[in-house]
Amino acid sequence: MDFVSGVKEKAVLGIRDIRSGDYDGKTVHMNGAVHTIRQMGEISFIVLRKAEGLVQCVYEGRKSGFDIRELKEESTVEVTGTVRGEERAPQGFEIRLQGIRVLSKPAQPMPIAISKWKLNTSLETKLALRPISLRNIRERAKFKIQEGIVRGFRDYLFSQGFTEIHTPKIVARGAEGGSNVFRLDYFNKKAELGQSPQFYKQTMVGVYDRVFEAAPVFRAEKHNTTRHLNEYTSLDFEMGYIDGFEDVMEMETGMLQYVMALLEQDYKKELDLLKVTLPDVSRIPAVRFDEAKRLVSEAYNRKIRNPYDLEPEEELLIGRYFKEKSGSDFVFVTHYPSKKRPFYAMDDPQDPKFTLSFDLLLRGLEVTTGGQRIHDYDRIIEKMTRRGMDPQDIQSYLMIFKYGMPPHGGLGIGLERLTMRLLDEQNVRETCMFPRDVTRLEP
Amino acid sequence: MDFVSGVKEKAVLGIRDIRSGDYDGKTVHMNGAVHTIRQMGEISFIVLRKAEGLVQCVYEGRKSGFDIRELKEESTVEVTGTVRGEERAPQGFEIRLQGIRVLSKPAQPMPIAISKWKLNTSLETKLALRPISLRNIRERAKFKIQEGIVRGFRDYLFSQGFTEIHTPKIVARGAEGGSNVFRLDYFNKKAELGQSPQFYKQTMVGVYDRVFEAAPVFRAEKHNTTRHLNEYTSLDFEMGYIDGFEDVMEMETGMLQYVMALLEQDYKKELDLLKVTLPDVSRIPAVRFDEAKRLVSEAYNRKIRNPYDLEPEEELLIGRYFKEKSGSDFVFVTHYPSKKRPFYAMDDPQDPKFTLSFDLLLRGLEVTTGGQRIHDYDRIIEKMTRRGMDPQDIQSYLMIFKYGMPPHGGLGIGLERLTMRLLDEQNVRETCMFPRDVTRLEP
Repeated sequence: MDFVSGVKEKAVLGIRDIRSGDYDGKTVHMNGAVHTIRQMGEISFIVLRKAEGLVQCVYEGRKSGFDIRELKEESTVEVTGTVRGEERAPQGFEIRLQGIRVLSKPAQPMPIAISKWKLNTSLETKLALRPISLRNIRERAKFKIQEGIVRGFRDYLFSQGFTEIHTPKIVARGAEGGSNVFRLDYFNKKAELGQSPQFYKQTMVGVYDRVFEAAPVFRAEKHNTTRHLNEYTSLDFEMGYIDGFEDVMEMETGMLQYVMALLEQDYKKELDLLKVTLPDVSRIPAVRFDEAKRLVSEAYNRKIRNPYDLEPEEELLIGRYFKEKSGSDFVFVTHYPSKKRPFYAMDDPQDPKFTLSFDLLLRGLEVTTGGQRIHDYDRIIEKMTRRGMDPQDIQSYLMIFKYGMPPHGGLGIGLERLTMRLLDEQNVRETCMFPRDVTRLEP
Repeated sequence: MDFVSGVKEKAVLGIRDIRSGDYDGKTVHMNGAVHTIRQMGEISFIVLRKAEGLVQCVYEGRKSGFDIRELKEESTVEVTGTVRGEERAPQGFEIRLQGIRVLSKPAQPMPIAISKWKLNTSLETKLALRPISLRNIRERAKFKIQEGIVRGFRDYLFSQGFTEIHTPKIVARGAEGGSNVFRLDYFNKKAELGQSPQFYKQTMVGVYDRVFEAAPVFRAEKHNTTRHLNEYTSLDFEMGYIDGFEDVMEMETGMLQYVMALLEQDYKKELDLLKVTLPDVSRIPAVRFDEAKRLVSEAYNRKIRNPYDLEPEEELLIGRYFKEKSGSDFVFVTHYPSKKRPFYAMDDPQDPKFTLSFDLLLRGLEVTTGGQRIHDYDRIIEKMTRRGMDPQDIQSYLMIFKYGMPPHGGLGIGLERLTMRLLDEQNVRETCMFPRDVTRLEP
């Protein structure tokens, strides 16, 4: 009988192994993809691409034991060689080759020069060739930072007593309503793809008090903009026993502080590579919706056209205003008009035309929507009725209020948008691995 | 200008605060849902339900400053009272009430006794009332353990140099093919819901060498069994530079060892509550598919009907056989027949009727499918052609092989199935928060 008992130590080393050990002058084995081959006369440089970074290998003709003319870029290999400290090499060392074992070969050369520092191709081409354009060092660094955001989101919320949940994406009815839902046939029943885990995360507050989920959501928006995706990763949390929606903003601020610190600590290499300076999140200004409109109208001499909506240009101006006044890249805009928020939003008892809700803008772009929710059964039925909605349609959601729910609130963060703004990208497709938009269903 | 600067300390305490601090005899504030009210003559017990557990509060009539007859179960409250050590109370202390503030009230009493130790209702009723039945202490403990499995999966893989990815669920074509796909209209184009992130995770091995994803997958299976869900959470990983599919099994074994240790450490309360004994994963037996069939045929005097497939009953017998022979609840079954595996599986060069692949069974149920994949362009085209598939259909996937891929392999784990078997549940719906099956689209 054979047994498997866990990961075995292998002879191949990683970059970190070599940098943290005493390998100078020693013979090592390392694997990777052949990123570039540069002939320099007597010697040649073969640069290996590994998840951790690039490694410079030196080919010295016959001494290296193989014929470099037979080696192709994007082959994957395991090299054997001697480690030498070399300040000019990417990792502070190079490997003088003594042998190579080719693990795989490409069938064709790359159609784009992914080994260039910056891919000099259009976004269109980059996306069409996404499976290989992501191999570019700068492209892949973006999604490494995105990983860090999600890690920080989860780890911080775990530390605050949240429970992670997994809720269904095929649903009878979307939480946001409206026309932007994808419909599908579910065993001869009508179903939709979830626009948000809203109903489910509220439900789970009745179970675990505080919950979060990082998962895909689907919006059948027909407009092709630089800010919209038809499928994106939503970072959602929902918390019970709040005193007001301010508790939700405070939790988000704490989370962002944790995320930025984590990025500085564990993703410094990628931040440097992309020349990203992280925003200061020690304190985030908060301003009422109507006040924000008034401020930018006065400051930038701009007429208020619709007092109940924020146009994208107004969001940009609000971002600019608070950057100028308080130095902050983030700003919370609070008390959105009731008619612009879903039925489950709690109206402000002081003035029910507005809600106890907020958006978080980063450099003038909405990256979060949140707020306090109605928790009382009679009040939610009353608001639905006022809006002409039929409580029968969402009975299993309303059940949680009928049998008792704590005061609660929460938020949803668009991961790709947050990443886009942090990295100063101009199109949200740049920070989505495989974007879905009106014309794009592949790759 | 107002600023938000993070989470503020609040006067309300959690269970952990009290257990780890010196609160005996001190007055504290605590919130929670009124789980039960038990009148005991002179005094009454009000049990609060919190995410962390249950807290016993003692009501002593006028001394407690409110009228208990006005309090309803499933109200949420903030209580004020004096902490007293009490061995018989769930947390080793109780709170002698001095006051109560009601935060919310239910509109109706619960239709099922969720405060009972075991919900004495059918699975059917439990699922129909899922939004509230999950409030039962034992029900919610299952999903807390599920959280631990996912946490352990991620944390272990991070420690092994894996990168987390987010791949699209709306796809042009599913990875597994066949008829069990959900179809939808995507802006007048035909689209499907992803049956697996297979193509995308292989693609990302070309970028990050090792990747994982924990996300929903969709299978339009028409059969209603105790083991199938139409939407489930798949724990996927994929790793490059492997020497063989054994590397994948070793990584899974290491991950399971980490998960079990994490559950013992951080989820002991829930394991005890459900009386769960975790399986020994120090070593997991591995047996070839054909050998496993032969062994159980001989041991249990059972005829081999189909040499190329494992029937559910045979899986159960394999589980039983290896439990008896080696004491292991898990068993790897390797070298599945090629015709039962998708086109991307690597055939065994020793005997191409079989593949370099495996399933992991837990107590006789398949919880993982994995293996080595073809990485060579010509070989995958050749295999597709042999199967009558058109390479044109999945060009953007085949691109990764055309331009070079390392030898690689990976696996997918059904989270709900793994949880089901760990908790000794008999139906996979018991370990899915909001299951989707042929007849169930709500809640």
